[in-house]
Amino acid sequence: MTKILSKINQANDIRKLPEDRMPALAAEIRQYIIKAVSKNGGHLASNLGTVELTIALHRFLHFPEDRLVFDVGHQCYTHKILTGRKEAMMGLRTEGGLSGFPKRKESDCDVIDSGHSSTSVSVALGLAKARDLKGENSRIVAVIGDGSLSGGPAYEALNNAGRCKTNLIIILNDNAMSISPNVGGMANYLRTVRMSAKYIDFKGNVEQVLNRTAMGSKVAKKLQKMKATFRSMVIPGEFFTEMGLTYFGPVDGHNMTELGRALAAAEKIDGAVIIHAITQKGKGYRFAEQEPSRFHGIPPFNPGNGRPFAGIVKETYTDIFRDEIVKLAQKNPSVLAVTAAMSDGTGLDLFQNLFPDRFFDVGIAEGHAASFAAGLSLDGMHPVLAVYSTFLQRAYDEILEDICLNDRPVTLALDRAGIVGSDGETHQGIFDIAYLSHMPGMTLMAPRNGAELRKMLAFSVQYPHPCAVRYPRGRKDTEYLPECADIAYGKAEVLHQGNGIAVMFLGTLASEAEEIASHFRGLGRGITVVNARFAAPFDRNLIKELAANHSLLVTMEEGVKTGGFGEHVSSFVMEEELPMHVMTCALNDTFIPHGTDRELRKKFGLSTEEIISRIEQYLKRHES
Amino acid sequence: MTKILSKINQANDIRKLPEDRMPALAAEIRQYIIKAVSKNGGHLASNLGTVELTIALHRFLHFPEDRLVFDVGHQCYTHKILTGRKEAMMGLRTEGGLSGFPKRKESDCDVIDSGHSSTSVSVALGLAKARDLKGENSRIVAVIGDGSLSGGPAYEALNNAGRCKTNLIIILNDNAMSISPNVGGMANYLRTVRMSAKYIDFKGNVEQVLNRTAMGSKVAKKLQKMKATFRSMVIPGEFFTEMGLTYFGPVDGHNMTELGRALAAAEKIDGAVIIHAITQKGKGYRFAEQEPSRFHGIPPFNPGNGRPFAGIVKETYTDIFRDEIVKLAQKNPSVLAVTAAMSDGTGLDLFQNLFPDRFFDVGIAEGHAASFAAGLSLDGMHPVLAVYSTFLQRAYDEILEDICLNDRPVTLALDRAGIVGSDGETHQGIFDIAYLSHMPGMTLMAPRNGAELRKMLAFSVQYPHPCAVRYPRGRKDTEYLPECADIAYGKAEVLHQGNGIAVMFLGTLASEAEEIASHFRGLGRGITVVNARFAAPFDRNLIKELAANHSLLVTMEEGVKTGGFGEHVSSFVMEEELPMHVMTCALNDTFIPHGTDRELRKKFGLSTEEIISRIEQYLKRHES
Repeated sequence: MTKILSKINQANDIRKLPEDRMPALAAEIRQYIIKAVSKNGGHLASNLGTVELTIALHRFLHFPEDRLVFDVGHQCYTHKILTGRKEAMMGLRTEGGLSGFPKRKESDCDVIDSGHSSTSVSVALGLAKARDLKGENSRIVAVIGDGSLSGGPAYEALNNAGRCKTNLIIILNDNAMSISPNVGGMANYLRTVRMSAKYIDFKGNVEQVLNRTAMGSKVAKKLQKMKATFRSMVIPGEFFTEMGLTYFGPVDGHNMTELGRALAAAEKIDGAVIIHAITQKGKGYRFAEQEPSRFHGIPPFNPGNGRPFAGIVKETYTDIFRDEIVKLAQKNPSVLAVTAAMSDGTGLDLFQNLFPDRFFDVGIAEGHAASFAAGLSLDGMHPVLAVYSTFLQRAYDEILEDICLNDRPVTLALDRAGIVGSDGETHQGIFDIAYLSHMPGMTLMAPRNGAELRKMLAFSVQYPHPCAVRYPRGRKDTEYLPECADIAYGKAEVLHQGNGIAVMFLGTLASEAEEIASHFRGLGRGITVVNARFAAPFDRNLIKELAANHSLLVTMEEGVKTGGFGEHVSSFVMEEELPMHVMTCALNDTFIPHGTDRELRKKFGLSTEEIISRIEQYLKRHES
Repeated sequence: MTKILSKINQANDIRKLPEDRMPALAAEIRQYIIKAVSKNGGHLASNLGTVELTIALHRFLHFPEDRLVFDVGHQCYTHKILTGRKEAMMGLRTEGGLSGFPKRKESDCDVIDSGHSSTSVSVALGLAKARDLKGENSRIVAVIGDGSLSGGPAYEALNNAGRCKTNLIIILNDNAMSISPNVGGMANYLRTVRMSAKYIDFKGNVEQVLNRTAMGSKVAKKLQKMKATFRSMVIPGEFFTEMGLTYFGPVDGHNMTELGRALAAAEKIDGAVIIHAITQKGKGYRFAEQEPSRFHGIPPFNPGNGRPFAGIVKETYTDIFRDEIVKLAQKNPSVLAVTAAMSDGTGLDLFQNLFPDRFFDVGIAEGHAASFAAGLSLDGMHPVLAVYSTFLQRAYDEILEDICLNDRPVTLALDRAGIVGSDGETHQGIFDIAYLSHMPGMTLMAPRNGAELRKMLAFSVQYPHPCAVRYPRGRKDTEYLPECADIAYGKAEVLHQGNGIAVMFLGTLASEAEEIASHFRGLGRGITVVNARFAAPFDRNLIKELAANHSLLVTMEEGVKTGGFGEHVSSFVMEEELPMHVMTCALNDTFIPHGTDRELRKKFGLSTEEIISRIEQYLKRHES
């Protein structure tokens, strides 16, 4: 089955193979990817869609001198297979195994560690200018999806690429549609005239050219129709030529010969060239072609039928958000929903179906989403902006200026807060406590289970100021100790009243806090357990009260330590000169790779064993 | 002199005046603005350029029902004059006086407090959708400069405005060129055909139309030429029509009759309309027309000759940066400079002149700037990204992901860190310590004077990891205690060795620390004074040493308290159980309005009197 692939053991091996073996190689790689992803989960549809594109790039480029920058990076599996990581692919996304994203430490063919959208052209442009300054000649290619083009940083970069007078090839990997076979001849014709040297100065509008022929007219009408949809506003190429880029396309992104010709032609052009390649998400795997969205990021599945192995029993926090936000919207017509290309991921899909007029997917554009939400809220509406914790980092300034400074009633729903597991460094939601809690006027909550998430959301949509709720990926503790008191602003919830030692946890660390408490209860100590609920403002009165009969306060949170909840509490206790020591338990101040949630918590500072041991050492020092 | 203006005392008064008085009113307002700005300083050129545009908008809109959103907001002076704040304008930017930016608390005609670029269309779009949901009919207008269009959030917003099917008028205030009088007839003709109802569907390229006449051909050539420059890539309107917006223009932005006709025509269109208005920065004031850049933001000046009142004697931190970065670049060819439309403001102008190939102004695009710098650094270059502290907030995610996660040797030079004075809330650089210090791998320094800034910059460009240097606006302490030791990584500088009390300050609070120390020295205490130098990583060893013979450590920093340097130190002392109390002195956790630096420090928690008093109270509690 891997007859050709077996000949590829390191970068550039692919260049030694005859061109006519490439379709067979693509088929082998496709099967190989399906096998790896079905085993470990991962990004399937985008990788199946870029097999031929990556092969064409690997026949064009020479590694590691030439540089290939993938936007986001979730489409790099073929690249990994072709650069000496074929065997390692079977350990994809497992702890200590291959990352699902480019990683410099894995290979010198990976240019930059990435995972967030819309920055590839910026990075590639930097590489290109550095190359020019050094008088070198390497080829630099960025691969960016049509979705990533909705992000402002991509536009900022194209804006500069067009005027920078540096050689750079940008592949627009457009999978919003497939090329239907009946227009293939016309498309071939256009590419031929466009790429032959004497037509290179040709800057006309694709539609004008298309309209000259009957076949072309059909294409033009299709393009016209597409203009009404969001992602395709970049077609035809006029948009790019106005920015000073040379535009080639559209090219069939699954035809390696055509891709090779386009790359060869692009290389002859001075300046930045954009090659518009049309690809199909999930290409070559029936189930993924039919449901590309479900196969974007997927847990392990049965390759024979495309179904996930494990049935889902308990609800995830996302499921609870999906359900609760609809209930709140049914009760309160001012509740609106905004997301940044994450309707399914955040669970806003049901809201979108039920309240299409009150739902806004702005594309991958978190900064705009935050300012837009501020605008929506200026006249009586209460928008809920649902984004993954890590991606909301893109809107830091807009949240600070447009939402907090203007004291807007906007709810930020931060899904995937804390450890996210197999996506690794770029996806861990470990900075939100630090970056939100220092914003004046921001309220930040974290629920300890699903019932509390519902209460916090209900609280937030009637609270007339900025408010964020962070909750984790998955099902951790969703049903743990399900009873919980109503939300009172800025108040923590005391789960067990004891004395001597208090454990105050933020969010879904209830079971760990309980485990620690029960350990010490077994030793005859009446430990206090507090659900912090609010990271900002945290419950200062309760902490003062605790100091009356506790000598140790242990804080626990799933976020970086510096700038986090524990530091704020510790600094407060110091400031108030309370007679109580604060032990801050948080994630170590570092980027956290992929792995299982439990293992990562353990490895990076949040295991119950380690916390128990730290407490015991403290007691030994102070009670001996 | 203010014959007509005297009739305008509140919003909408202008609508009662006859149209033929408007040119005279514009002239009066222009003089009024020159008077106010020459007295208090402010943004002159942009406000002189938008007098007629704002008058036309005020005759078109009805306040406060209709909503007018200014991008950035520094061009709102005429709007303030026309909405009941005429007299208050003479106290512009003084403490307790009018802000130089829109402020909701000043007037219900100000929609949103702003100060950062490229968000007006997002906010206006939010207002428009909220209006639609409420079934109301108010008119919503965003005014955005051509410069602000280089920012990604503006593109993200246009991208959505084009598909949102909501009525919204966007004024593109294009001051990159003035309309020369000899083409006025042609321009009038074009506007007439463009705006009469039957031509509204016309989508042709401006150049094509212009080329039909000899006069037009000259304009077309001008436009062609402009295409080579950065800011004008948005002309002609094809860019906008591809995004689904209806494009009107160009319109003479100083001709109120034409502006009024364009607005009336725009109102008849369904969906988002962009009116491209050509204005001249500094219009009507000779000195500002000649030097629009110098008159963008300007200190008090003599209106008779346009010269600033006070001669500049001492160097500012910006001057020192300007000089030192050039010296470093002369010694080290890998040193590059990147800025986001702030070449003059940050002092990179000299570098730009001397090393044009190594200098990159990417426009108002901080996120791109950070990723681009990461790209530049991937192959041996060391970029220095110089941006104001408050504007670097826009690049939070890119710094975290592309620079820190990838451990790139990039220097972030943060000018205007700390209190900035008269620009107020949106411009204070008070969050950078909090948002940078929790990024894994980030080094953050702050110099106490000009000599130390030089040493820190020199240190940073040879340091092979991410590194930020924050320094203030102006001249505070630039020459104070000029001798300073060389930089040792992560090491603080002990200025005076004492015992009992230690004061550890970050950045340019040396004279305040010295003042506090000398107060207690006068009382017979041998106080220790430490220049922290590094906020991240801070000097843990020194703090441990201090604990041996100090019972009180006072930290001082010009940034918000939560998530700041003092909290990190306090939490560390707690964690290590050092027998020393930490008193954190920082700015209160709030947005800080405009005023003088000294007064603001005093009012928001950093006066020496208050710190002395806090220390005395502490001593009283513990030594009695």
